[in-house]
Amino acid sequence: MKSKTEYLFFETPERRALVNITGRLEKLVAGSQVQEGLCLVSAMHITAGIWVNDEEEGLKQDVMDWLERLAPVADYRHHRTGEDNGDAHLKRTLMHHQALLPVTKGKLDLGPWEQVFYAEFDGRRRKRVVVKIIGE
Amino acid sequence: MKSKTEYLFFETPERRALVNITGRLEKLVAGSQVQEGLCLVSAMHITAGIWVNDEEEGLKQDVMDWLERLAPVADYRHHRTGEDNGDAHLKRTLMHHQALLPVTKGKLDLGPWEQVFYAEFDGRRRKRVVVKIIGE
Amino acid sequence: MKSKTEYLFFETPERRALVNITGRLEKLVAGSQVQEGLCLVSAMHITAGIWVNDEEEGLKQDVMDWLERLAPVADYRHHRTGEDNGDAHLKRTLMHHQALLPVTKGKLDLGPWEQVFYAEFDGRRRKRVVVKIIGE
Repeated sequence: MKSKTEYLFFETPERRALVNITGRLEKLVAGSQVQEGLCLVSAMHITAGIWVNDEEEGLKQDVMDWLERLAPVADYRHHRTGEDNGDAHLKRTLMHHQALLPVTKGKLDLGPWEQVFYAEFDGRRRKRVVVKIIGE
Repeated sequence: MKSKTEYLFFETPERRALVNITGRLEKLVAGSQVQEGLCLVSAMHITAGIWVNDEEEGLKQDVMDWLERLAPVADYRHHRTGEDNGDAHLKRTLMHHQALLPVTKGKLDLGPWEQVFYAEFDGRRRKRVVVKIIGE
Repeated sequence: MKSKTEYLFFETPERRALVNITGRLEKLVAGSQVQEGLCLVSAMHITAGIWVNDEEEGLKQDVMDWLERLAPVADYRHHRTGEDNGDAHLKRTLMHHQALLPVTKGKLDLGPWEQVFYAEFDGRRRKRVVVKIIGE
């Protein structure tokens, strides 16, 4: 069994952002020399997630607006600690914080429109994503 | 390490459907000869998901009604591209697009009521799910 | 390839609870002797989930209140079967029922604030979580 672990770092200038990381993941998979296996992509900070969906500008705005409706900026109990990012914890929960990508014949085995996004909900600081590839 | 990759195809006559695929997955696991490992089930089209829950007709209607409340058919920015399925992208996000099933002693290691569903939100066309089993 | 499968049991005195299981998972990983691999944690009962987020009391109350807003106790079709836990099936769906944790250098490779919770939405009875660790 082969394994490779890498960390991607992000520091988005905006508080909220969707960053397409598909190309970076493809390179990591190629470098791992895994032909058949699994690639875990998981946001290590609890106000960010991973989203697998379409690279389409309108939809990306739609999903951000929708998250704001379901998990709005508001006065959360969490803010008694001095934080102001309660909504970001809930948005991460809705989007889910990780995805597991199949690796087949040495490549990410994604559908024709599947793109992988780092979903930032409390940016403007350095944050990390773990990528772990295992297989043969 | 053994690995096996299969693709399931769906073309539901309805726009929205929950298709129980547990039996098909059990057969794929048996055919893989993996005794201990993991079975990834992931919808490759971005308007479908995978749901692990109860095979109970009332609940299946409840979850579809609930998804419509939280991610309704509406006029999304995404529709400027000519698409009309913005809600389906959001419903996939809520349901999540994949599940990872443990394989123990050569079988899916599911709880007593856990059933695996392909969740279609924009059907009437041919769509695909990847099943990747790895282990020993 | 090494693999280890364990089951955690829960019987919470409350109907709803968030139980931090990070320490228990760390012990299972240490016992597995896996240095590089993946640890699947999945709720086997369909009214419970797994949540990876912050050990902060206010936030834990926030997320429970939020789940009640999005997936409230109500009169569901599912209740015609004699059950009264339709909301719990939906809350599990929102929180997701599983997480996959990377194992690096023999330890859970979590972010600085990531903690793993068993999320119970219909407790007061014995329920089970599968933990499956594979790797080398």
